[in-house]
Amino acid sequence: MIGKLMYTWANDLFPINRSLTGEGVRQTLNYINKLIPNLSIYEVPTGSNAFDWVVPNEWTVRDAYIADEFGNRIVDFKTHNLHVIGYSEPIDIWLNRQELDSYLYSLPEQPNAIPYVTSYYERRWGFCLSHNQRLAMPSGLYHVLIDSDLKPGVLNYAELIIPGEINEEIFISTYICHPSMANNELSGPVVTTALAQWLNSLKNRRYTYRIVFIPETIGSIIYLSKNIDQLKKRVIGGFNITCVGDERCYSFLPSRAGNSLSDDVAQHVLKYTDKNYKRYTWLDRGSDERQYCSPGIDLPIATIMRSKYGEYPEYHTSLDDLSFITPSGLEGSLMALQRAINIIEKNIYPKVTRLCEPHLSKYGLYSTLSSKNLDHQIQTMMNLITYCDGSYSLLEIANLINEPFWELIPIVNKLKANGLLS
Amino acid sequence: MIGKLMYTWANDLFPINRSLTGEGVRQTLNYINKLIPNLSIYEVPTGSNAFDWVVPNEWTVRDAYIADEFGNRIVDFKTHNLHVIGYSEPIDIWLNRQELDSYLYSLPEQPNAIPYVTSYYERRWGFCLSHNQRLAMPSGLYHVLIDSDLKPGVLNYAELIIPGEINEEIFISTYICHPSMANNELSGPVVTTALAQWLNSLKNRRYTYRIVFIPETIGSIIYLSKNIDQLKKRVIGGFNITCVGDERCYSFLPSRAGNSLSDDVAQHVLKYTDKNYKRYTWLDRGSDERQYCSPGIDLPIATIMRSKYGEYPEYHTSLDDLSFITPSGLEGSLMALQRAINIIEKNIYPKVTRLCEPHLSKYGLYSTLSSKNLDHQIQTMMNLITYCDGSYSLLEIANLINEPFWELIPIVNKLKANGLLS
Amino acid sequence: MIGKLMYTWANDLFPINRSLTGEGVRQTLNYINKLIPNLSIYEVPTGSNAFDWVVPNEWTVRDAYIADEFGNRIVDFKTHNLHVIGYSEPIDIWLNRQELDSYLYSLPEQPNAIPYVTSYYERRWGFCLSHNQRLAMPSGLYHVLIDSDLKPGVLNYAELIIPGEINEEIFISTYICHPSMANNELSGPVVTTALAQWLNSLKNRRYTYRIVFIPETIGSIIYLSKNIDQLKKRVIGGFNITCVGDERCYSFLPSRAGNSLSDDVAQHVLKYTDKNYKRYTWLDRGSDERQYCSPGIDLPIATIMRSKYGEYPEYHTSLDDLSFITPSGLEGSLMALQRAINIIEKNIYPKVTRLCEPHLSKYGLYSTLSSKNLDHQIQTMMNLITYCDGSYSLLEIANLINEPFWELIPIVNKLKANGLLS
Repeated sequence: MIGKLMYTWANDLFPINRSLTGEGVRQTLNYINKLIPNLSIYEVPTGSNAFDWVVPNEWTVRDAYIADEFGNRIVDFKTHNLHVIGYSEPIDIWLNRQELDSYLYSLPEQPNAIPYVTSYYERRWGFCLSHNQRLAMPSGLYHVLIDSDLKPGVLNYAELIIPGEINEEIFISTYICHPSMANNELSGPVVTTALAQWLNSLKNRRYTYRIVFIPETIGSIIYLSKNIDQLKKRVIGGFNITCVGDERCYSFLPSRAGNSLSDDVAQHVLKYTDKNYKRYTWLDRGSDERQYCSPGIDLPIATIMRSKYGEYPEYHTSLDDLSFITPSGLEGSLMALQRAINIIEKNIYPKVTRLCEPHLSKYGLYSTLSSKNLDHQIQTMMNLITYCDGSYSLLEIANLINEPFWELIPIVNKLKANGLLS
Repeated sequence: MIGKLMYTWANDLFPINRSLTGEGVRQTLNYINKLIPNLSIYEVPTGSNAFDWVVPNEWTVRDAYIADEFGNRIVDFKTHNLHVIGYSEPIDIWLNRQELDSYLYSLPEQPNAIPYVTSYYERRWGFCLSHNQRLAMPSGLYHVLIDSDLKPGVLNYAELIIPGEINEEIFISTYICHPSMANNELSGPVVTTALAQWLNSLKNRRYTYRIVFIPETIGSIIYLSKNIDQLKKRVIGGFNITCVGDERCYSFLPSRAGNSLSDDVAQHVLKYTDKNYKRYTWLDRGSDERQYCSPGIDLPIATIMRSKYGEYPEYHTSLDDLSFITPSGLEGSLMALQRAINIIEKNIYPKVTRLCEPHLSKYGLYSTLSSKNLDHQIQTMMNLITYCDGSYSLLEIANLINEPFWELIPIVNKLKANGLLS
Repeated sequence: MIGKLMYTWANDLFPINRSLTGEGVRQTLNYINKLIPNLSIYEVPTGSNAFDWVVPNEWTVRDAYIADEFGNRIVDFKTHNLHVIGYSEPIDIWLNRQELDSYLYSLPEQPNAIPYVTSYYERRWGFCLSHNQRLAMPSGLYHVLIDSDLKPGVLNYAELIIPGEINEEIFISTYICHPSMANNELSGPVVTTALAQWLNSLKNRRYTYRIVFIPETIGSIIYLSKNIDQLKKRVIGGFNITCVGDERCYSFLPSRAGNSLSDDVAQHVLKYTDKNYKRYTWLDRGSDERQYCSPGIDLPIATIMRSKYGEYPEYHTSLDDLSFITPSGLEGSLMALQRAINIIEKNIYPKVTRLCEPHLSKYGLYSTLSSKNLDHQIQTMMNLITYCDGSYSLLEIANLINEPFWELIPIVNKLKANGLLS
């Protein structure tokens, strides 16, 4: 199944040491390019400006460890890439236990988790480890080594344009800048990859699809700085895809405006996919929607998630691993996004072609025997028709009559086939 | 009282075998014409088109029964006209018990009720009976006879125009196509008849009243097809009158738009007539509002009811008989409709003629002694005045200050008499 | 503290026998003029017209008592000025106990309270006393004397204009026409006096402040009749200051429109000052907002109170004395009004100067180390920025992000200092 396939991709991508820049990002994009061959991969040089921001140095880390005085590696980047702070500068030094302590990061309240820590914009070095491991480190001398570079290079991102009948676009964004973490982040690129394959496979697409795989924050800012005019002109809806791998819940985060087509669509899909889905507000934002919906940018981007970043205990630790996400968690998210896109594609403003109710039994669409109760299917058809005045979209009608959008499509088709809807 | 009178009319009309067409409709309209002499009765020939519909054949049934092999009539149209399916075609046949069964209709969950079944638009025949009676029919041979006609004829309806000072109209509709059932349907035409007599008796009417007695669905569609231009130009409010005979509750069904004057008026009346009235939605519709509010027709028609069609167990069975409705049930409904019409007639946009509060004690409208508490009557007067800025209708003011519209009328008159309102 | 000072003023003003007109009003205004020297005191002659009203005679009372047949004063105006009905005409008469009774006013349900009663617009005389005292008055003869005048004179009020950078005005009104009562009324003028001193002391004021001390109702009507054109042109917000002395609760009464700047500001202040504040509606109005918000006047005046007039048992009785109000009750009210004025003064429409989120760490406004949790202060700054699109006022943003307006001011200043807001 597609869920298992996505899980395999996540498994392959998991060990790569991604960061904002560098070899890990390139390996990740190359892997995805094999799955979606028509990807365009861009590079932006260190020092390039993007609004208030500047592309940082490219970071490379070859080795990093803390060893005891006998040379035993106590904390080793090669066993888990979360052990070294993202963008750590190179260091090679002997410190005693107490001196070392100010370079260590751990979570007392989650003593078995290695935290994820970065320092992109200030030179720093440090190691992350479980709190239990930290407590177990005896006094003595330690050899600390980080064999890393921070040198001018490039920042990479990928873009895929899937053309449709019209130039108006659906914009899909996901990020590829976190090391070995599964829900936040690998669920995002693998579900986006499957979505791209599905969109490519569709025979008819009304809208053009613009899909980007970028480093979070700096990547979306760079992408916006290069494409904002076109995006503002063309994008009529879209989604930031993140945290779509587990099975604990579905959740929704609105756009800043809160009333865009994407918001309406996402809420409709989630209402009929998981009636207990969690609703967050714009105040809970935390991913690239921060840029896409910022003042003056104002793209109509909403977010459909499973367990939201910042809201599950495993978030940004080594516990957000491949056991946290599941094939069916990924597949449910993919289905929700496909439903959302199908709604945008098929969201017509239907208009009935007859004054008064059509004589449905004439078309074989109504029981010829009238008694006390009406079949639910017929009732739904009549409820649909009663709002087909050309002023309501099919999505608005679905909300008005409390039916999932996708169950109205066959009814619309039947009515169209009988000439009853235009 | 008027309640008892209305009940008498219902009693007279009960035995008549009404259907969409035929002698029963004509007898019913003639009876009503004696109570409201200026009724215009129209006929529309079989085969006439009305939007998506066609006027059906006229149906006549002279006799119908199931007899056992000894000639005993087991099920007999002459004992209850619900026993034969509406629009049954003629039949004269001998069948055994098992063959007969597929032509029988009963309600296992209401074993003493004869259901009401029709087949207007497909030729069919059948008998309705209580489930207990059905179970008691032994095996053996049965003689089935329906002496009926389905022949080109006419469909009848009646219209009454009661002129007012202006051409804008209040539209009142009720239906006269159901055989012996009381709440749905006879309560409708008898309350409408009393309402018409009352409207005729009024000395001043601002609005013109258009009242129709029609067969449900096909009748309203025919009426609309003939009068839609004038209706759309003139009708500013109105009510479909149905299910107004019992005392179990009051209920409200909105227009499709839900925010018309009729909706506001009906909800105000019901709020102050029965604070526990039931509120239905447009999705619960089921009578001629389906046509009056359909896309492109969009008349502002709401519905004030007692127990709503489809919502009480006796509905569309022989249990909806004269014991289900009462004189005071009918009278309460009439009063609610009269209140609604009075509101529409008197819904001015009052404007106070003074800046700041008027000096009410100068006009004898306020206590000259000021102490802790204010009389409720005076408080209501001051609450009314404070919203008389010409932007709120009297109905909106009544809602804002939580008082029944009809209790504001004497206050408005007093203020006008003192020159304080224009 | 300012609370104690305001309480001292209330203490000084308490014994004065104020009414709509007369020496008590003048003494009160003169006292306030010593605290705010630039007050303009106006007089309007008896008989002057103001909309539907006429300035009444000036009332003077020198002595008033009920004495028993031995000359013992049983009820004496000199012991409490509530004992005589406001605007009592002169009388000098002997009555027996029963005759006297129809001129006595007491409250059976509050047997120790002297009620406050007036008869401004109908000649009348009477005495108010506690119900216990009334019951204790034996049969016998009583000598009743009221040494009062009702003669043409003047009605006085005071106005203070404190100029600001622009001509648009904040309008503050309070009343000075009640005899010895503390919450309703002295809390009003003393808090208004402190507010005026504070406004005078401010170095920068954007708005011009118009502050009036007037007799209730007739005073506001007169003031409006003289100043309505200017008020309608200039006033953008304001407050009626009444019942601001006790500590039982905070409360809010909206303007008639309910959605003015003053309403929004008052509700924001109260939400973050006392989350359990009471919300009244326009139907609960009872002071000069009745005139300021009347049809055609429509000034944007809301009311921030402690225990509202008419809603606490001591209201309009001798129990509303100096023990009912407190220094900290007065001070809390003053602070709430200062907060409200500060919001109006500083309610800009901020606009961020960068597309996408500013790179806050560049300005030292953000942690350079990214881990699981974000500091509340930084989160608030980012929440503020995300709504700085020039379309939301700072007050609207404060409501959107659930922070008190006054806590956003230092953040706005920091962002402005870094060139991030315009």
